[in-house]
Amino acid sequence: MRRLGRYLPILDWARSYDRQTLESDLLAAVIVTIMLIPQSLAYAMLAGLPPEVGLYASILPLVAYAVFGTSRALAVGPVAVVSLMTASAIGQMAQQGTADYIAATVVLALMSGLMLVAMGLFRLGFLANFLSHPVISGFITASGLLIAAGQLRHLLGISGGGQTLPQILRGLVEHGAGTNGITLMIGVGVLGFLVFARTRLKGVLTRAGLPSRPAGMLTKAAPILAVAATVALSAGLQLATRGVPVVGAIPQGLPVPGLPRIDMQMVRALALPAFLISIVGFVESVSVAQTLASRRRQRIDPNQELLGLGAANIASGLTSGYPVTGGFARSVVNFDAGAQTPAAGVFTAIGIALAALLLTPLLADLPQATLAATIIVAVLSLVDVGAMRRVWAYSRSDFAAMAATVLATLLAGVELGIVAGVVLSLVLHLYRSSKPHMAVVGQVPGTEHYRNIRRHEVRTCPEVLSLRVDESLYFANSRYLEDRVSALVAERTELRHLVLMCSAINAIDASALESLTEINRRLTEAGIGFHLSEVKGPVMDRLRGTELLHALNGRVFLSQHEAACVLEGRC
Amino acid sequence: MRRLGRYLPILDWARSYDRQTLESDLLAAVIVTIMLIPQSLAYAMLAGLPPEVGLYASILPLVAYAVFGTSRALAVGPVAVVSLMTASAIGQMAQQGTADYIAATVVLALMSGLMLVAMGLFRLGFLANFLSHPVISGFITASGLLIAAGQLRHLLGISGGGQTLPQILRGLVEHGAGTNGITLMIGVGVLGFLVFARTRLKGVLTRAGLPSRPAGMLTKAAPILAVAATVALSAGLQLATRGVPVVGAIPQGLPVPGLPRIDMQMVRALALPAFLISIVGFVESVSVAQTLASRRRQRIDPNQELLGLGAANIASGLTSGYPVTGGFARSVVNFDAGAQTPAAGVFTAIGIALAALLLTPLLADLPQATLAATIIVAVLSLVDVGAMRRVWAYSRSDFAAMAATVLATLLAGVELGIVAGVVLSLVLHLYRSSKPHMAVVGQVPGTEHYRNIRRHEVRTCPEVLSLRVDESLYFANSRYLEDRVSALVAERTELRHLVLMCSAINAIDASALESLTEINRRLTEAGIGFHLSEVKGPVMDRLRGTELLHALNGRVFLSQHEAACVLEGRC
Repeated sequence: MRRLGRYLPILDWARSYDRQTLESDLLAAVIVTIMLIPQSLAYAMLAGLPPEVGLYASILPLVAYAVFGTSRALAVGPVAVVSLMTASAIGQMAQQGTADYIAATVVLALMSGLMLVAMGLFRLGFLANFLSHPVISGFITASGLLIAAGQLRHLLGISGGGQTLPQILRGLVEHGAGTNGITLMIGVGVLGFLVFARTRLKGVLTRAGLPSRPAGMLTKAAPILAVAATVALSAGLQLATRGVPVVGAIPQGLPVPGLPRIDMQMVRALALPAFLISIVGFVESVSVAQTLASRRRQRIDPNQELLGLGAANIASGLTSGYPVTGGFARSVVNFDAGAQTPAAGVFTAIGIALAALLLTPLLADLPQATLAATIIVAVLSLVDVGAMRRVWAYSRSDFAAMAATVLATLLAGVELGIVAGVVLSLVLHLYRSSKPHMAVVGQVPGTEHYRNIRRHEVRTCPEVLSLRVDESLYFANSRYLEDRVSALVAERTELRHLVLMCSAINAIDASALESLTEINRRLTEAGIGFHLSEVKGPVMDRLRGTELLHALNGRVFLSQHEAACVLEGRC
Repeated sequence: MRRLGRYLPILDWARSYDRQTLESDLLAAVIVTIMLIPQSLAYAMLAGLPPEVGLYASILPLVAYAVFGTSRALAVGPVAVVSLMTASAIGQMAQQGTADYIAATVVLALMSGLMLVAMGLFRLGFLANFLSHPVISGFITASGLLIAAGQLRHLLGISGGGQTLPQILRGLVEHGAGTNGITLMIGVGVLGFLVFARTRLKGVLTRAGLPSRPAGMLTKAAPILAVAATVALSAGLQLATRGVPVVGAIPQGLPVPGLPRIDMQMVRALALPAFLISIVGFVESVSVAQTLASRRRQRIDPNQELLGLGAANIASGLTSGYPVTGGFARSVVNFDAGAQTPAAGVFTAIGIALAALLLTPLLADLPQATLAATIIVAVLSLVDVGAMRRVWAYSRSDFAAMAATVLATLLAGVELGIVAGVVLSLVLHLYRSSKPHMAVVGQVPGTEHYRNIRRHEVRTCPEVLSLRVDESLYFANSRYLEDRVSALVAERTELRHLVLMCSAINAIDASALESLTEINRRLTEAGIGFHLSEVKGPVMDRLRGTELLHALNGRVFLSQHEAACVLEGRC
């Protein structure tokens, strides 16, 4: 039972579920449902899918996450970045609007779900650590720009497309002449209203006497208001007959569960995109979940989150959906509205299911421009120029990884973008740690402190050289240490002892051990004593019994001061 | 002039060249030449090339290295591992023995040379650090086994081939029935003689009254003695007519310098192998050069070494050679024989050129089995089982990288072997540093020391948690820190202050900064103070002006003791 509980967090909270929790969860579910309906439709369009697929992806996946997830407030469903990645992955193998395209997204959701579950079972959540903050931030900013640019054509009512900024811009230029004036007016109108709702509406409502909380909730309903208003307008004026692209007939009802056709060639082609979608979705989801959990001093388990998100994606794949993950905005709304347990997600799923059953006939007249405006307003909040400025000020090499991610994403698409960012940040990290800070140290007169001879007035002895390395020693920097020691020794003909001060060395791997042994061998041949000082306990534990300590021609001193006292006797 | 001197180390030593240096260099050159002739022939055969190519690769490349290299003792030429890598790379695109095969190896040498020069000019020598000691050691051991297994067919006088152990073994089984008895006798005889020479001959000669130094030198001449003896035997008994495979007619004379035909498709196919050969050759060469330089307290410049080796390979490509690098055994012999400057390499080149002009007609009757025995004895010294045992004892994760390299090299070939090793060691390194050692610390009573509560009897206060992280913070471990802090805070309801003790943090990258800022935000929301203690100078310098310090809800304490004194007032 305990073992089962580990994989089924629902057993934890379902036992103590009471009426008060139910009321909180129900209220949160109503608000999230209202927010999620237009978002689901819009993100499905962004992914190149019919709008009902967005609704399908917001039903069973929420239930699956409620059973397997650990976050009490995370709201799962279609999100912007993953939708873009889906469009990019499937766009390479099928034409939007075809049955093949829809079939491939279902397979993608299923594969992503299986990969997440596998990562959870093998506790591979650490793989997400390969994505550094600057890379993720750059990737999300660039994705936001790419998505916004890609939606412009829907605001203009023209055709076009493309996975990269140059392709999208070329499409806009080529088809721009066909702009539909009514569509543009609707699009710009909705855009203006949503921006107003986001920035000013709450202030206006509270000044009008409404309490802050309902004012905030009402603000979140702005997108569905925009949907309702433009559907009414479009239906009333028969705009579809005037060239305004509308959503069109949507099949009414719930998805029929079933396995998609699976074709091995497709599976191979989708393996990398599915992996990248899994990792990006996981990172986005976990950081939201962690932020919310810590506000109530709860915690989430990242490896169990993998299972939760994996189950959600498998559920999505089995019910004609597409890849889903935890969304930032909707999770915050869920949390603020008072969701106490994942049951809120189940109630949201029921709300969306009702929408799929009852509301879909109303959506046929919905102008696509309304959805495009919804997407643009949502994704522009992802663009974080401030983060780029902060990273630039803090670290040029982190900025380089970020800039590479942004440029590669915009110019070469999402997959190459994220891969370029990861590879560059790994290479830069290894480069940095391959040239660690080292300081020749000397005694601060009258004390037992030993400091960098370049920064402090210190006493040194020409026969003894003390070198402090400010980094753990491992394969990427062990040869650099060999080089530096060779150089330092070559330029000091009087040298008789070298002391390696290990106070900042947290670990020594087998390569570094080899290098230290080699340094000892070389120094021995040159008639120079090799000593260690201030070796940390765990490091010393591992060194015991190695050839290095056996062959060391000098001593291991507990403190640098002791080493200096013994070796500098004649200075 | 100084700038020129930086790229032309020859200007350093040529100025002070005198008669005594000349004599030392000449003696060393004679001994290395005697050693290099059979090795050049044998390694060319190992690379799947006609024997004269080995001689060609030992003439101009040595001169080029003498001009551009920084090591005073490194002996450049064909080596076993690079020859195997050449055979593997070219074997995928051309049939051994064809003109295409020879043309491709020339292009490979040229590409490898250009890559090395480019790496030298852009100071990319640090790329070699991606190869950890266990990976190199495993790779060389596995290559040694692969080479030895591959030569068995020459000892048996049968056909066969293959790039992986299973292929080689299958070849031996298939063709084993055709074993030629005379060939086998010659092969086993030479093998026995060479093993005897390597292990016993020096002792026998010194006991017979010869001084140690000439005895050692004579020992090195054993392979050329074996060549001479078997040539005489083979020619005298007309063994070629009895089915003993011999080297056959070798064109007499020097290579004609010229550019090979260059075909872009070939260049693309050879790009990765050329890069791997460059890196492996560079690592092997630099570690030999560094070992020898430090014995005389000289030093080498790794980036200039790239230029030296690059020039050698370009020279090899321009004179019908194949990829070369600095060899371990011959460099040690060169050093022991007293080589003082790279001029010894020039004299060796002259010696090999004379051999190519004068000795080649004699080699037509040389049995291939003699060369195979030479190779086997040379490469079995590369197999280092002791290193595997040492790495196993020291670190299981380093051993995993080593074992993966060995297995992948034996079973899937040299290229996949080295790539698998590099990738696995990077992943394991990131995995290790993604879960750094952290300790909750408390005060050792009566002192100002703060130690791990699990290892020491310490005093703590339930309202204050002090956490020490024993690793620099960067993207791979920053999210783990977030997780750990969340977990620690969630299980302590009384907590009011968290102190992060930074004494072992040598650097904080932008991702870790983001995570610390996020931790601060979460702790602030939970009403918990977040403090830092013992932040290192350089780390503090970078943190100044960041949002973290601006938004930090607690303080930065100089020492952990100060933090405890201030925060634990009520305990």
